[in-house]
Amino acid sequence: MWHFIIWNLSDYISRNYSSTRCLPSSAITLSPAAERLRYILGEDDDMPNPTLFTEMDTLQQDGDELEWKESARWVKFEEKVEDGGERWSKPHVSTLSLHSLFELRTCLQTGTVVLDLEGYSLPQIVDEIIERQIDEGMLSPDLREKISFVLLRKHRHQTKKPIHRSLADMGKASGGGARHAHSRSMNDIADTLSTDQLRNKFMKKIPRDAEASNVLVGEVDFLDKPFVAFVRLAQATTLGGLTEVPVPTRFLFILLGPTGKAKSYNQIGRAIATLMVDDLFSDVAYKARDREDLIAGIDEFLDEVIVLPPGEWDPKIRIEPPKKVPTADKRKSVHSLNELGQPNGTAGGSGGHAEDEEIVCVFVRFCGGLFLDMKRKLPWFPSDFYEGFHIQSISAVLFIYLGCITNAITFGGLLGDATDNYQGVMESFLGTALSGTVFCMFSGQPLIILSSTGPILIFEKLLFEFSKNNGIDYMELRLWIGIHSCIQCFLLVATDASYIIKYMTRFTEEGFSSLISFIFISDAIKKMVSHTQYYPINTDFKPDYVTAYKCECLAPDPSESILGCIVYHYSTLNITDLDWSQLSKKECVKYGGSLVGNTCKYVPDLALMSFILFFGTYSMTVSLKKFKFSRYFPTKLRKLISDFSIFMAIMTFVGLDRLIGLKTPKLIVPTEFKPTRPDRGWIVLPFGKNPWWVYLASFVPALLVTILIFMDQQISAVIVNRKENKLRKGCGYHLDLFWVGVLMAVCSFLGLPWYVAATVISIAHIDSLKMESESSAPGEQPQFLGVREQRLTGILVFVLTGVSIFLAPVLQFIPMPVLYGVFLYMGVASLSGIQFWERIKLYMMPSKYQPDFPFLRHVPLRRVHLFTLVQIICLAVLWVLKSTVLAILFPVMILGLLVVRKMLDMVFSQHDLAWIDDILPGKDKKKDKKKGDKDDTKKKDKKKGRADDSKDKVRNVKIYCHQLAGLEQKKPG
Amino acid sequence: MWHFIIWNLSDYISRNYSSTRCLPSSAITLSPAAERLRYILGEDDDMPNPTLFTEMDTLQQDGDELEWKESARWVKFEEKVEDGGERWSKPHVSTLSLHSLFELRTCLQTGTVVLDLEGYSLPQIVDEIIERQIDEGMLSPDLREKISFVLLRKHRHQTKKPIHRSLADMGKASGGGARHAHSRSMNDIADTLSTDQLRNKFMKKIPRDAEASNVLVGEVDFLDKPFVAFVRLAQATTLGGLTEVPVPTRFLFILLGPTGKAKSYNQIGRAIATLMVDDLFSDVAYKARDREDLIAGIDEFLDEVIVLPPGEWDPKIRIEPPKKVPTADKRKSVHSLNELGQPNGTAGGSGGHAEDEEIVCVFVRFCGGLFLDMKRKLPWFPSDFYEGFHIQSISAVLFIYLGCITNAITFGGLLGDATDNYQGVMESFLGTALSGTVFCMFSGQPLIILSSTGPILIFEKLLFEFSKNNGIDYMELRLWIGIHSCIQCFLLVATDASYIIKYMTRFTEEGFSSLISFIFISDAIKKMVSHTQYYPINTDFKPDYVTAYKCECLAPDPSESILGCIVYHYSTLNITDLDWSQLSKKECVKYGGSLVGNTCKYVPDLALMSFILFFGTYSMTVSLKKFKFSRYFPTKLRKLISDFSIFMAIMTFVGLDRLIGLKTPKLIVPTEFKPTRPDRGWIVLPFGKNPWWVYLASFVPALLVTILIFMDQQISAVIVNRKENKLRKGCGYHLDLFWVGVLMAVCSFLGLPWYVAATVISIAHIDSLKMESESSAPGEQPQFLGVREQRLTGILVFVLTGVSIFLAPVLQFIPMPVLYGVFLYMGVASLSGIQFWERIKLYMMPSKYQPDFPFLRHVPLRRVHLFTLVQIICLAVLWVLKSTVLAILFPVMILGLLVVRKMLDMVFSQHDLAWIDDILPGKDKKKDKKKGDKDDTKKKDKKKGRADDSKDKVRNVKIYCHQLAGLEQKKPG
Repeated sequence: MWHFIIWNLSDYISRNYSSTRCLPSSAITLSPAAERLRYILGEDDDMPNPTLFTEMDTLQQDGDELEWKESARWVKFEEKVEDGGERWSKPHVSTLSLHSLFELRTCLQTGTVVLDLEGYSLPQIVDEIIERQIDEGMLSPDLREKISFVLLRKHRHQTKKPIHRSLADMGKASGGGARHAHSRSMNDIADTLSTDQLRNKFMKKIPRDAEASNVLVGEVDFLDKPFVAFVRLAQATTLGGLTEVPVPTRFLFILLGPTGKAKSYNQIGRAIATLMVDDLFSDVAYKARDREDLIAGIDEFLDEVIVLPPGEWDPKIRIEPPKKVPTADKRKSVHSLNELGQPNGTAGGSGGHAEDEEIVCVFVRFCGGLFLDMKRKLPWFPSDFYEGFHIQSISAVLFIYLGCITNAITFGGLLGDATDNYQGVMESFLGTALSGTVFCMFSGQPLIILSSTGPILIFEKLLFEFSKNNGIDYMELRLWIGIHSCIQCFLLVATDASYIIKYMTRFTEEGFSSLISFIFISDAIKKMVSHTQYYPINTDFKPDYVTAYKCECLAPDPSESILGCIVYHYSTLNITDLDWSQLSKKECVKYGGSLVGNTCKYVPDLALMSFILFFGTYSMTVSLKKFKFSRYFPTKLRKLISDFSIFMAIMTFVGLDRLIGLKTPKLIVPTEFKPTRPDRGWIVLPFGKNPWWVYLASFVPALLVTILIFMDQQISAVIVNRKENKLRKGCGYHLDLFWVGVLMAVCSFLGLPWYVAATVISIAHIDSLKMESESSAPGEQPQFLGVREQRLTGILVFVLTGVSIFLAPVLQFIPMPVLYGVFLYMGVASLSGIQFWERIKLYMMPSKYQPDFPFLRHVPLRRVHLFTLVQIICLAVLWVLKSTVLAILFPVMILGLLVVRKMLDMVFSQHDLAWIDDILPGKDKKKDKKKGDKDDTKKKDKKKGRADDSKDKVRNVKIYCHQLAGLEQKKPG
Repeated sequence: MWHFIIWNLSDYISRNYSSTRCLPSSAITLSPAAERLRYILGEDDDMPNPTLFTEMDTLQQDGDELEWKESARWVKFEEKVEDGGERWSKPHVSTLSLHSLFELRTCLQTGTVVLDLEGYSLPQIVDEIIERQIDEGMLSPDLREKISFVLLRKHRHQTKKPIHRSLADMGKASGGGARHAHSRSMNDIADTLSTDQLRNKFMKKIPRDAEASNVLVGEVDFLDKPFVAFVRLAQATTLGGLTEVPVPTRFLFILLGPTGKAKSYNQIGRAIATLMVDDLFSDVAYKARDREDLIAGIDEFLDEVIVLPPGEWDPKIRIEPPKKVPTADKRKSVHSLNELGQPNGTAGGSGGHAEDEEIVCVFVRFCGGLFLDMKRKLPWFPSDFYEGFHIQSISAVLFIYLGCITNAITFGGLLGDATDNYQGVMESFLGTALSGTVFCMFSGQPLIILSSTGPILIFEKLLFEFSKNNGIDYMELRLWIGIHSCIQCFLLVATDASYIIKYMTRFTEEGFSSLISFIFISDAIKKMVSHTQYYPINTDFKPDYVTAYKCECLAPDPSESILGCIVYHYSTLNITDLDWSQLSKKECVKYGGSLVGNTCKYVPDLALMSFILFFGTYSMTVSLKKFKFSRYFPTKLRKLISDFSIFMAIMTFVGLDRLIGLKTPKLIVPTEFKPTRPDRGWIVLPFGKNPWWVYLASFVPALLVTILIFMDQQISAVIVNRKENKLRKGCGYHLDLFWVGVLMAVCSFLGLPWYVAATVISIAHIDSLKMESESSAPGEQPQFLGVREQRLTGILVFVLTGVSIFLAPVLQFIPMPVLYGVFLYMGVASLSGIQFWERIKLYMMPSKYQPDFPFLRHVPLRRVHLFTLVQIICLAVLWVLKSTVLAILFPVMILGLLVVRKMLDMVFSQHDLAWIDDILPGKDKKKDKKKGDKDDTKKKDKKKGRADDSKDKVRNVKIYCHQLAGLEQKKPG
């Protein structure tokens, strides 16, 4: 016997190490175990096996009675019942000992293995096994009754109870003895399912078609050698109360042994349970023809096993499930090349990822891009609406709406200043609502949010000054520029010029979007500083000398009063009749009085209150966003709090502001529907005010506007269409630009501001619509599934913006500092998602603390630093230029970024650039694609016809999108 | 040959699994490998082996030249050179493949093993090895030259450069080719050490007596079978540029093989390197007598190895070093019982931890406890001073000093209010300085900080009212109470009554300390609220109507002015001569004027500014404290920032306050040395003012004071002396109480407030003096070593407090809200260290997110919740009582907690209570003790005599401290 075991184990070695001398020979050969597996697994791979749920029950003495107590379970990771805690542990990676695996191997070699047993109830199955053991002489017949008795004891499961029930129990069960009474369900080995089993909430975590494997281990006093059986049933059968959930059992592993080695049995039980949930081994278990196949499965498992040295790791530590585990497919294929066991990627080749598919830039045909865009977007059009009906949309709409009106008000105010109210807050609201609604309705990428942007504002300012100084009518000139620019946009669309954005890499994108973020942040802070200047604090105030502070309005000198009389001759009041002391500050100044006193130029409290509101809103939003990652409350509630963080922060600080009741500056929304400036109408006429040559000459400034709009629009679109966002419905650069052009012309006719894609708000829009998988197996990480792509949220946002003109009574309670707080948050949040920002942080980190970014593993740190430095310098230059008169050349400067990036090719190797300046390694791309294809094939047949139809379309889309931006889209389902 | 390998590997199995059938038999037997190891390791265990530093170099082709390139290194954990990053990875646990370990085993069985080679240079050693291989017929003689040539190539090490140098390089090395030029040092196989080796900063991480083991692996084209050698040198020898650091080499592992299997060689190299740094295997390697011993070492290693299933873990993930790894000792002893391989502690018994050593409560002899205390503390007295000289002390002194003066001012102000200035801020400062200095100088536990406390304040208030109402002289009565109380304290000391605190468990302690924390927090917030009431905000202020706001002082009605004249008859001013409009608010009220106007009762800005300062100081302190755990900047800088966080926060907000320049309420420190009330002197006379019976009757209130002081003092002391703080110098409950009693009497004579231990500040004191080990091996966690126990910081704090009377010009810049912010922080910080608080948080956590507390593994959640609920109710009751007249019975209520705790014995099982209500499991206690003993034995001989002397003393201390509080102290070195 002894010799036999040696042989069995050495058999493992000989099978798997036969071709080694001290090392494997250079020729790649498969071990016999692998060969065997390849044969059985290769048979018919199209029908995947069901997921296995594994439950391990151990034999326990409860008072006089023996019972089976659930001690651990596996869906993918292990959850064990805590010793005294009567609670499930967190899911963790099963850490096994090599010892127990070898012991398990011997068990399977010596024990009974019954494959495809026709079983319908546990007693029958148990009888069958015992009979076989007796037949083979492994068990003496007089133990039949005893073993059968033990195996048919009741099963006690660890079920989770709703909290209100367990709280109610808290009072009752006070003694130590009654502790178990309420916490577990007890199942007889009946044929019917108990209510506890059916009610078990854990079912949600198990796939519908899952089958169970039950592991029973225990020590008994009547055996002197172990009783081992591995059973596969021909049909998965529900064996009464065996399993905690109503899932039919397919596998059964029984190990009973002599007393004294309970821990060993436990370990062996854990080993087989872990094997059963292993993707590869469970495949083997389903398809095994005999005992040898199972052994080969274990051998393969052993060969792929990861080993931790005992001195560097404490086996008591529970390892949290990793974010990502290698798929079984990968393991299989890799294994067959005998290349596994290369932990830590010692020499993992990375050559594959630089070889991006070649982007061929072809001029398809006149308007070819536009038609392709439309052709691609049309099939999605209905789903763009019904997919918007989701609770998440509400928070997204609220969030983006607030951002939009803040933007509309801010830019409206600034534009009003810049253009002498030719375009004011009213026009801003109307224009935002009109352009936004149209764009979200018809554009190629409805996730993009249109808004006024800084560069446009600067352009308008310069244009207004120019026309004022040269006696040209501003509105008419602007209209012609708009028309020219619209035509130029159409030309760009028709010639598929958007192909140029394929030259935009991470470098350009990041430069642009961080610049915009910085502008957001600095604008918010600037606004707050100007508040402080607008409401100066009297720092010399001494509370005790309150009697010394006043501000009086004194009547003007009689000598000057005549002048005052002349200026305000339309006033019906006689100036001398005025009670000067009763006048307000403004009236006093208006009537020529002078303000005398030491408080006249100070406003108490408002500056500090504004600061508190500003900073409070910002910090509360940040904290609530982070709350998602805290340990408190169930996931759903946390997600809700996180989604509505901005709304809650705004509400809180509006409430605080109301509570204190200070006259902080509030949001002012126009209430009447009329142009801000009384001397202009809603339509700008194209002729009559300017000489004819102006109509032609406006071509030149229009060109600048076109470049500006083109760059601003398309870079934002590239950022929105990033691979990371996993958009399914494809891009539509040409269509987007087309509508921006149309809206340019319309807005020019109506005398409304021009609109382009706003990077920061668009990113916020996408972030608020991100979807994550409900994780299935306990311990598995939720996966980012993509973005809820639809047109509804965008349309709602802009309709609401339009309606806001009538919402004034509600909106007027919102203090401006609160909105600036939201601005600051948006800027910071969009900055923190940028890799550039991560790389800046690296400067301040000692290398041992740096996160394990893939590019850091492959590019020397100083090259990374150099790259970041170049970006910082570029940004600084842009920032300085933006603040000078050259601001109008902003779009040209962005083009300059492309040039700088091109020059970097000379400084950095392509290898380095591929890692730093690329979005995702190419390898992953291919994998995704493959997986995507596979997912498709798994889809039900009824869609097959359609899928085939759309295949060509899909290919076109793919090639096209690659041509456009080197981005990749998934095909429509 | 093939057969031979099978035999070799099956040999591993047969050795270690021979006693198994399918399972190990019930009798515990050692495997032959373990037997063998036990023999060689058991020989002489007193002389520990040097630590091994392992470097792995791989053979690389650099242009035309072959060279050895460092690819990984191990001190305890693995650090590898990143592929393209030219940087060291973070230290991580080496994840090996089982495959490579078996291959290594075969390599050692078939290759050359030379133990105790007399080697002095690499060429000589290489020659020796080759010669042996040729002799044994394993190598053909014509390969001699080639192998020798390869093995003597230069070694290129990955050395870390200072950042300024690498930044300088950034500019230079622009091409891809020159990338390697500057980043590495190149070492010839010379006999002398290069400057790069000597300058290597990594030396700091390696223990002084360390030796190196070098692993060389590579593929060459002239071999058709591997060339393997394992060499142990008789003497550790510096082999020129072989190792990156100037550490002598002891072991050498060489593996050269045919081309094509570089990855395999690498994995084998990593396997032997990991083995070499394993505590147990390195021991084996040092003591091995032959090849078989080494093989046995590998077998033992394999048996203890932890296995991760390939489907649940991605081998590419680098596992961070765990906080704690099992010690080699534990592994050895556990192993010898064949009980290893029980990961996740499936059935780990916890029975051991409830069996606390029996606490025998004996009345030693008159003043026995006091004398023992003194006897114990005396030997430490000198070190109590010189151990205080450390940079950390400065921050501690600053921190505690600020807490103390804030306390002194707050309580001083409150006492002044309560006692009609018989005890004011001046007395408070003086008393704090005097009591604190004396206590820190002579007490049993100098880490305790004395302070005024809430209960005492309430008592004084009631006492003053009583004596005022009954015509008894307050100061004289107070003196007699003090004298009586002092005598009662002496009685308590003499009878060793402090033994009573052994009944204080976590329950009582936590109840008391969270109550105090809540008082801190609520006091800070109350103060801020009262600020807002003191500086009301004019919420109706409309900036435009600034002209309407004023406050004027109007002359009183002539009818009332005579009264005003009478009241202020000592004023030299004639009231009618006054310019009423020039008077300040106070003067106006003083002279009977009336304040008229809408701003009179408002103070602008100050309330909001106070809030900003308060909340700003608090949040900044919290953030800076947390900064310690961020990734930025080197550890030392972060620790500095964290240590000085309170100081920096105070400085920042004092600066902000100065910058804005508002008249926020500032810290007022008395500048003249005289009693607050002019009609009292510095000495209170015991006789003369009250009838004689008062002297006797004051015994009764004195009793209350004594209970109060006893409880307050000793609970704080128990908290300070907690096991968690790892105090070495022992406790001194009797001595502490003795000095508190003495100071009671002294303070009563001088008319100063009474002082007891202040929990929150004492905890803050300990926290600011915590020591952590400088982690040695990369990846090892710093360990909490204990507290810098000394008297210097305490003394300095109180001397500074005394001197503060003269520091007024500096201290007057500190706004009070900043100090309240510090108060708030202290309260919150001391709360967050309490397990009770952690358990409250559990209420809000779904069980799957709950942290892995040991008690949660062993006690059902609802029992834990019930326990917490009882604590919450007790606290709520205490809180309510504290706010009523019953406050004076506060000490009795704490005694009530003990009763409640006793009653819990009936509700909870002892098993549950042992886990929830105990500080540390008893098992750990024993382990610590054992380790402590062992550490001692390792100490140098010169201290041996002394150590023996102190042994008895130590034992006494231990028993005594156990008797006192069930706490454990370490013996003095």
